[in-house]
Amino acid sequence: MAKSTKIPVGILGATGMVGQRFIQLLERHPWFEVAWVAASERSYGKTYAEAAKWKMKTAIPPRIAKMKLSAAEPAGAPKVIFAALDSDIAREMEPAFASAGAAVISNSSAFRMHPQVPLVIPEINADHIKLIEQQSWRKQSGGFMVTNSNCSVMGLALALAPLDKAFGIESVFAVTMQAVSGAGYPGVASLDILGNVVPFIKNEEEKMEEEAGKLLGKLKGGQIVPASFGISAHCNRVAVEDGHTESISIKFKKKATAEKIIKAWREYRGMVADLKLPFSPAEPIFYDERVDRPQPRLDLERGHGMTVSCGRLRPCSLLDWKFTMLSHNTIRGAAGAALLNAELLKAKGYLE
Amino acid sequence: MAKSTKIPVGILGATGMVGQRFIQLLERHPWFEVAWVAASERSYGKTYAEAAKWKMKTAIPPRIAKMKLSAAEPAGAPKVIFAALDSDIAREMEPAFASAGAAVISNSSAFRMHPQVPLVIPEINADHIKLIEQQSWRKQSGGFMVTNSNCSVMGLALALAPLDKAFGIESVFAVTMQAVSGAGYPGVASLDILGNVVPFIKNEEEKMEEEAGKLLGKLKGGQIVPASFGISAHCNRVAVEDGHTESISIKFKKKATAEKIIKAWREYRGMVADLKLPFSPAEPIFYDERVDRPQPRLDLERGHGMTVSCGRLRPCSLLDWKFTMLSHNTIRGAAGAALLNAELLKAKGYLE
Amino acid sequence: MAKSTKIPVGILGATGMVGQRFIQLLERHPWFEVAWVAASERSYGKTYAEAAKWKMKTAIPPRIAKMKLSAAEPAGAPKVIFAALDSDIAREMEPAFASAGAAVISNSSAFRMHPQVPLVIPEINADHIKLIEQQSWRKQSGGFMVTNSNCSVMGLALALAPLDKAFGIESVFAVTMQAVSGAGYPGVASLDILGNVVPFIKNEEEKMEEEAGKLLGKLKGGQIVPASFGISAHCNRVAVEDGHTESISIKFKKKATAEKIIKAWREYRGMVADLKLPFSPAEPIFYDERVDRPQPRLDLERGHGMTVSCGRLRPCSLLDWKFTMLSHNTIRGAAGAALLNAELLKAKGYLE
Amino acid sequence: MAKSTKIPVGILGATGMVGQRFIQLLERHPWFEVAWVAASERSYGKTYAEAAKWKMKTAIPPRIAKMKLSAAEPAGAPKVIFAALDSDIAREMEPAFASAGAAVISNSSAFRMHPQVPLVIPEINADHIKLIEQQSWRKQSGGFMVTNSNCSVMGLALALAPLDKAFGIESVFAVTMQAVSGAGYPGVASLDILGNVVPFIKNEEEKMEEEAGKLLGKLKGGQIVPASFGISAHCNRVAVEDGHTESISIKFKKKATAEKIIKAWREYRGMVADLKLPFSPAEPIFYDERVDRPQPRLDLERGHGMTVSCGRLRPCSLLDWKFTMLSHNTIRGAAGAALLNAELLKAKGYLE
Repeated sequence: MAKSTKIPVGILGATGMVGQRFIQLLERHPWFEVAWVAASERSYGKTYAEAAKWKMKTAIPPRIAKMKLSAAEPAGAPKVIFAALDSDIAREMEPAFASAGAAVISNSSAFRMHPQVPLVIPEINADHIKLIEQQSWRKQSGGFMVTNSNCSVMGLALALAPLDKAFGIESVFAVTMQAVSGAGYPGVASLDILGNVVPFIKNEEEKMEEEAGKLLGKLKGGQIVPASFGISAHCNRVAVEDGHTESISIKFKKKATAEKIIKAWREYRGMVADLKLPFSPAEPIFYDERVDRPQPRLDLERGHGMTVSCGRLRPCSLLDWKFTMLSHNTIRGAAGAALLNAELLKAKGYLE
Repeated sequence: MAKSTKIPVGILGATGMVGQRFIQLLERHPWFEVAWVAASERSYGKTYAEAAKWKMKTAIPPRIAKMKLSAAEPAGAPKVIFAALDSDIAREMEPAFASAGAAVISNSSAFRMHPQVPLVIPEINADHIKLIEQQSWRKQSGGFMVTNSNCSVMGLALALAPLDKAFGIESVFAVTMQAVSGAGYPGVASLDILGNVVPFIKNEEEKMEEEAGKLLGKLKGGQIVPASFGISAHCNRVAVEDGHTESISIKFKKKATAEKIIKAWREYRGMVADLKLPFSPAEPIFYDERVDRPQPRLDLERGHGMTVSCGRLRPCSLLDWKFTMLSHNTIRGAAGAALLNAELLKAKGYLE
Repeated sequence: MAKSTKIPVGILGATGMVGQRFIQLLERHPWFEVAWVAASERSYGKTYAEAAKWKMKTAIPPRIAKMKLSAAEPAGAPKVIFAALDSDIAREMEPAFASAGAAVISNSSAFRMHPQVPLVIPEINADHIKLIEQQSWRKQSGGFMVTNSNCSVMGLALALAPLDKAFGIESVFAVTMQAVSGAGYPGVASLDILGNVVPFIKNEEEKMEEEAGKLLGKLKGGQIVPASFGISAHCNRVAVEDGHTESISIKFKKKATAEKIIKAWREYRGMVADLKLPFSPAEPIFYDERVDRPQPRLDLERGHGMTVSCGRLRPCSLLDWKFTMLSHNTIRGAAGAALLNAELLKAKGYLE
Repeated sequence: MAKSTKIPVGILGATGMVGQRFIQLLERHPWFEVAWVAASERSYGKTYAEAAKWKMKTAIPPRIAKMKLSAAEPAGAPKVIFAALDSDIAREMEPAFASAGAAVISNSSAFRMHPQVPLVIPEINADHIKLIEQQSWRKQSGGFMVTNSNCSVMGLALALAPLDKAFGIESVFAVTMQAVSGAGYPGVASLDILGNVVPFIKNEEEKMEEEAGKLLGKLKGGQIVPASFGISAHCNRVAVEDGHTESISIKFKKKATAEKIIKAWREYRGMVADLKLPFSPAEPIFYDERVDRPQPRLDLERGHGMTVSCGRLRPCSLLDWKFTMLSHNTIRGAAGAALLNAELLKAKGYLE
């Protein structure tokens, strides 16, 4: 068999929910190939199939099922690392890999707000990756770190980006109804969510409010100047497996009509349309005319989980407009987001 | 057996979900006694047990189970009528009963915004019942009509009332996560709600916005002057059986602190504390200090379903404060609300 | 554009849940093409997109969305008809189409037990289609009727077929935990199933018991001699969207070991392996070694919904063996079943 | 205030789900009063309110909320102990308390099948408590141990008891659909149960099969001779919060009619009717005539959770009869069961 010419990648936290999504999404990826998987010490030396409580709806790829879990150390690991770690662990482990020369594409919150670490949604702020050059890891070893945002802010930021460009955002209200998969596995106990709503997700509102500003901020003089709109978030957990739904109200600086807003969403292609990235959806944002959409059960898989769905645009009696937004929290909001970041880095020559 | 000295009452729409709640809640009521039940023509002549698809968690009271369903006509009906009808039917039927001299205590939306029909939550605006005297039915036959609000606005209005008094409300943003029982039976199809959120409930946002103003309005010169705060509502259906949860942000005219807000809620007794109404909860509002409360699965039965639970009060970066509110949609928000209105009317001498 | 060489097909009951599955599954079918859709009179003349409450997770194929709904009459309809009708309607309508010369491939229960109508699962009893020649419709107009089984018996019959061949089945216990999609839309009310189990599905146990015998029966002398094993079914509805799970105990005539049973399942290809039918799964039955599988959330999509999953084979202290079986109720158990029957008919020359 | 004359009791494992039920059910108990609560070391010294993740629908009783958690050691503990421990811990800890002279009323599985430990459902086998006298703990210190059965077998055993007496049971087939609360907290992960069925509960089928025999066995010559019927159980977990539903088929030694079976259930009062135990339900078994009952959402609270509901009695084509049974798994199947055992012991003079 001919040797693969794909880029070998490693996955830190490979057995968790986001790690499983990475493995599922990387199967048959045209550019990347999983060559190394690591998890906690407890799993070290087991095969992936033995160590992972696989919860995806497709089977474990047979090649991965047999792969042995490595120790979570840079020695022997590939130079491109997807990190799906809890924040506490990420805080220690991600710099260790970046110091050792790896490109760390992280889904954790540990370094998202770090001034030299880009927080990237390629459609919105692909140019922020230039921050990489300021990272000390980069200067020392060539390694670096790039992060994607929290799952609850990803879809919101995408829905806002074209509107900010067209009308200037002044303020945003967002109330989330988040899926349980966002909390990992075992995550939310069934006794907490069957027939229930939990009006609290630790640190989630804070993340939404601060990350939105950085995502929509501008890179000026080597620094991110955060977007200046006001934002207030309420985060709730609901009995949904996958898919974060958000009720959003928004106030603009310039006058907007429903037609113009919908047009802005539908025409939005973002900064990476010309790069033809494999995970880049044809339509980053889909506007659904139907009166009761989007809904997680029905609209989640649009664009293979990479398209954000908006609907129910109508006037808001407090701000200007209100609408509903749905995004796939473990694809667009986590593993798919990191993958798209990796594709951007590859296209821009950072993975060579 | 001694003849009952309780007031005989009738129930229109007795077999529906709210009708069933009326029957459940009126069992052992100290002042009222179900003497007559009516439903659609299809049920006429059947016993209640035959006609109703009983969905309460307690058994049908045996006396009611055997009761024959009457035709939905004023002739032969008691003079106190609880109406749990769809709006379309209510629009015709409720005036017919009021014209015939009955006190119609309605849960439907048909006449809530009628200028001579009081929309009452006794704690908040018991004084609005004076509007009754202006009703043409009252003048002609002695009959009249009183309504309670939509299930989604009831808890919100109660949470707002003491704050409006203490600090003056300027604007309110409310996003609901509503239980399926609010849609009646069969109501929401299981395929629409299992693992799902439906971001649309017909006319619900409009009702919330207009009813809030009337509930918190003032009776001046024989008219209700609606409260003037701005309000924006987003309504969602979630996979919860009973209990509407709401994420609320609020802006005040005067400065409020968390301590003062919580104190205002905890000390609130409303306009009817001295009347000792049987369904009046000791605490109309309960503030829960726990970080992840209130939750419908755990906090719904507080005050036998008549207490509204608030929690998670914290600063809002857009308005002033944000919090979570939970209320029982078929008790405090429907049948219990109507019952409390009936008790108020009785205490004030309107049912004699 | 070159004219399609695919066989044009019509769908009766095209807007219901099974009708929607037909449309979803027929999109890009290599042999068939939807040319005609009909539903109840109420929908006549509307476009499909207007008339259907589309509940599939993929979008309505654009060509179908614009298609006008026809009257449900044979005149003008294609000669191959998939029927997804309620039994009462099927009883009248299906013979009308067969009489008019159409091949009626029915998913309804109306004619399943008719002695001249084959009840077919191609892997099990493809030869039963010879019954067609005895149908009066066939003799008069060339039209005919073929049915597939109830969704709850389909997976059971497939799991039993190789075991019956290898060991001879003497008796079977089956308890179902059935998904709500089996009841159509709106079907099961959310108030009936959230946090609940409903231990009753009308006529379902009777269908399971009688259809299993016909499916595993033998065609002798132009008649189906039903299989003679005893069978007892309990049917329950659970809060699952798609996928019927069954707890099954079984007694054999000959001694079987776990190894032999699993081997019989794994090697089973059925009667149609050589026909290369597009919807025929590579593995009709998959045996899962994992201790807690199969599960509807995780294992339903196996073989694009056409593979039946078995697991947990272990000794039964009453009969011989017990196991769990899962099948996709609206694909393998309904629309996919009918499609596979149509493919069989095509391969055998019945659709020319 | 007058000193309480109630018997002081302690709870081992007081913060878990069954421990919480004990506290809820013991509030206002006429004979017992919680005087001591213990949990794992981690909780030692905290107040109950701090240590417990309270998941009951009623509030923590204020007196208990403030109670300090004690170390789980016999010194200083009351002489009547309710034990709600995991089996592994129970295996060490329960004998320690019994050795120290305590009456240990255990809900764990650790000693249920021990030949000198009675496994008791008072209605069925109150006489088995005589086994206590053979316990070495009893002889040495006066302490002893009594257990109740697994939650999945409790309702089954009650439904079988009157039928065994009347007709003699020959064999039983039972398939469970069990609530998540049976697995404790956090217990079942929400990702495992939303929209799902899990066809596996570790050791549950084994417990059902062996405990049923001991429960319905006879005390002869100081030993329990287990009932000799055959029994096969399949255990499944479903998305229900509370309430185990079971599909049961049964074969009798003598001929039974539906009328006689229902009569046997309805007239059953068991061995303790004359003792007037506070938790003894007026009707241990309720037979529901409605075609689709019992259902956990609607029928669980019957007899305050202590009545077992049966329904859908109909002929079984394999054994003799089939029916559905529902019981409350954390009341009748756990904490309420233990409480009833404690009441029996008190009534029989064992707690003096």
